[in-house]
Amino acid sequence: MKDSINVGLLGFGTVGTGVMQVLAENAHEIKQKVGLPIRVKSVLVRDINKKRSFNGTFTVTDKIEDILNDEEIDIVIELMGGIHPSREYMLQAIAAGKHVVTANKDVVAEFGKDMFAAAEESNVDFMFEASVGGGIPIITPLKQCLTANRITEVIGIVNGTTNYMLTKMTQEGLDYDTVLAEAQAKGYAESDPTADVGGLDAARKAAILSSIAFNTRVGLNDVYVEGITRITPADIEYAKELGYVVKLLAIAKDSPEKGVDVRVHPAFLPQNHPLAAVNDVFNAIFVKGNAIGEAMFYGRGAGALPTASAVLADVIAVARDIVDESFSRVRCTCYEHKSFCPVEATESSYYVRLLVEDEPGVLGAIATAFGAEGVSLNSVIQTRKVNKRAEIVAITHCVEEKKIRKAAEVLRGLPVVNEIRNMIRVENPQEAC
Amino acid sequence: MKDSINVGLLGFGTVGTGVMQVLAENAHEIKQKVGLPIRVKSVLVRDINKKRSFNGTFTVTDKIEDILNDEEIDIVIELMGGIHPSREYMLQAIAAGKHVVTANKDVVAEFGKDMFAAAEESNVDFMFEASVGGGIPIITPLKQCLTANRITEVIGIVNGTTNYMLTKMTQEGLDYDTVLAEAQAKGYAESDPTADVGGLDAARKAAILSSIAFNTRVGLNDVYVEGITRITPADIEYAKELGYVVKLLAIAKDSPEKGVDVRVHPAFLPQNHPLAAVNDVFNAIFVKGNAIGEAMFYGRGAGALPTASAVLADVIAVARDIVDESFSRVRCTCYEHKSFCPVEATESSYYVRLLVEDEPGVLGAIATAFGAEGVSLNSVIQTRKVNKRAEIVAITHCVEEKKIRKAAEVLRGLPVVNEIRNMIRVENPQEAC
Repeated sequence: MKDSINVGLLGFGTVGTGVMQVLAENAHEIKQKVGLPIRVKSVLVRDINKKRSFNGTFTVTDKIEDILNDEEIDIVIELMGGIHPSREYMLQAIAAGKHVVTANKDVVAEFGKDMFAAAEESNVDFMFEASVGGGIPIITPLKQCLTANRITEVIGIVNGTTNYMLTKMTQEGLDYDTVLAEAQAKGYAESDPTADVGGLDAARKAAILSSIAFNTRVGLNDVYVEGITRITPADIEYAKELGYVVKLLAIAKDSPEKGVDVRVHPAFLPQNHPLAAVNDVFNAIFVKGNAIGEAMFYGRGAGALPTASAVLADVIAVARDIVDESFSRVRCTCYEHKSFCPVEATESSYYVRLLVEDEPGVLGAIATAFGAEGVSLNSVIQTRKVNKRAEIVAITHCVEEKKIRKAAEVLRGLPVVNEIRNMIRVENPQEAC
Repeated sequence: MKDSINVGLLGFGTVGTGVMQVLAENAHEIKQKVGLPIRVKSVLVRDINKKRSFNGTFTVTDKIEDILNDEEIDIVIELMGGIHPSREYMLQAIAAGKHVVTANKDVVAEFGKDMFAAAEESNVDFMFEASVGGGIPIITPLKQCLTANRITEVIGIVNGTTNYMLTKMTQEGLDYDTVLAEAQAKGYAESDPTADVGGLDAARKAAILSSIAFNTRVGLNDVYVEGITRITPADIEYAKELGYVVKLLAIAKDSPEKGVDVRVHPAFLPQNHPLAAVNDVFNAIFVKGNAIGEAMFYGRGAGALPTASAVLADVIAVARDIVDESFSRVRCTCYEHKSFCPVEATESSYYVRLLVEDEPGVLGAIATAFGAEGVSLNSVIQTRKVNKRAEIVAITHCVEEKKIRKAAEVLRGLPVVNEIRNMIRVENPQEAC
């Protein structure tokens, strides 16, 4: 009879320390829930001589073999991040018959299929609740709680850095560079912020969420990505005036007619949408299913303790199965092979901001040009003057991507149009595309 | 080898029909997820001659024995509601070795302990995701996803009827009787609305949620309950002016010092609280844990299809275990025996609305009276005149219930105080008690 569930931890950074802290602080509760204590037996680190803020009875090692070959270790928690050597270590752990729990969105988004196959072959679990939405329970809800639904839509605010930046821009009228510097100073953005502000981090999460939601494999390359670098205070201001907020959204839709459409881009979202109130570093995932209607999952998308909460939920689930000697078959739910909707065929409403000559008839000329390309306008507003020119803001009805692109090209060629200053999609459930 | 998972359905009302509909519509997905189709084999109804809107290959019976004695039936879904004979039927099904899935908050809140014990003895599952929050996944998240946390607080909007009514009162300035009539006309409120407007329905859900969250048995009688019947348009108006909305909240708190404190009552909630934007018949449950920080679960709290979504999530979980021949030990998580905080010792801020004589020095007299009873005021506002009198609105700092009650008694005795028109708790996380 075992007297504890033993864990090998790969990586001892912020989240690793958080995992240790939660295991120590909530040891009593966790033992009650599992039936046995959960003990971190060994930790893999790069430098075994580095001083750590957390001390305990565990061994520190720089050799992965010490963990792989330790037969007492039941579960490996991978918190190193990145693809190499995390992926190889996890595959080795699986091959050694150890359950794997990870927070690694890169590996899950890009190599999820292989990881599942390997886990299935070795009859072990491969779990990744912490890979999306930090502490927010979303993977288990999608895999277990919404199983009776055909899910048609997932819309998420899944990147805390950009949500913090956009919130600051909205609430304080600051510009992009200022809020980026502030986010970096607070440790919310990295010194190279590309993965966050460019949308890649959110795209990985979108791939994971949509794969599970639609039961089909969505890879990182299947996700269309635009970042927030082109959002200006003027766009934010117009959004406000028109009843919207600007958010970086991960949007995944599935319909029999169009196929699977997964994108990450900034979008105008109506102020009364439940996601519109998700501010600062908070994340939320909004799900539509044909039974549940709408549901939303909200919480802290990052941070040592929230992420540890998600990691340890997986660890506790695995530990319970070990104690019960029960094993639920590993379920890669991607049993469908759905086709994707090419980005040109996706549909959306659009906000278009133009700099035009300030002369009579311009508004009409622009509306006519849009119309000629099959783009129907919801509203056109002539707004503030910029030197001798004026800005015009148009909100279109639902339009196919290839039509709006063609319209933009035509508009750029009009003598009265000086510049298309920005085009941002509008995500409006009242006028669903 | 089985060729389907067979269900016996008790009750064929709105939710029962919803379950049938979702099983039919999503049969392909559900079969993929389970490995076998889920088939409703028999339905228990009161009148077998009644015309049904849903037809299928199932048998309709008015004898519970037909289901209990049918060895092919693996899972019994109970959707009759109420205590009798639902509870007896479920116990009989459990004794017959059948897994039980229910949406019955009455039985779970009042007899959960016995149901768990019976299920444990028979080695079957007893599941009740649909008993709280309709379609919203909350039981599984609490039992599985937040297991690494010590949960300190659960605040829920868990009654759709009253949330609809308060939303209408807030958005349209209508009075209680008008919105109640409207809710009844729309089918949101029953002809006898007592259980909803009096808070009893929410109290049952509060008992269920807090039992799981705090790992201790909270019965219906342990919940302090006030309904919304005394909320007036004036209170709603003052709330708005002061930056709050009025919601009927189920509040559960657990602290080592005070013990477990579970209440249902209307409360002022700051407009920027995530729960403040939960309107109409939507429900949401806000959870605080020592690892996750804050999380919120939002969705439709009632309705045939959302409730069917929750019921079938449980059914699918049980069905997967049957297919995998894996069985996770039934877990009554109430392994603690925590003490309760008596209501007199609970703490809250308060909104107090008084009708007073409109004469100099009244405001001072009242503030002095509060102070003498140890009630510290955050703000006192002399507001509109009512005939020759005036209304005064005070917001207190955190105060023990027994002190505010004593203060109210003293105030009622003051010659300048004509009437205490209302007292409503203020739930402000910025000034947590």
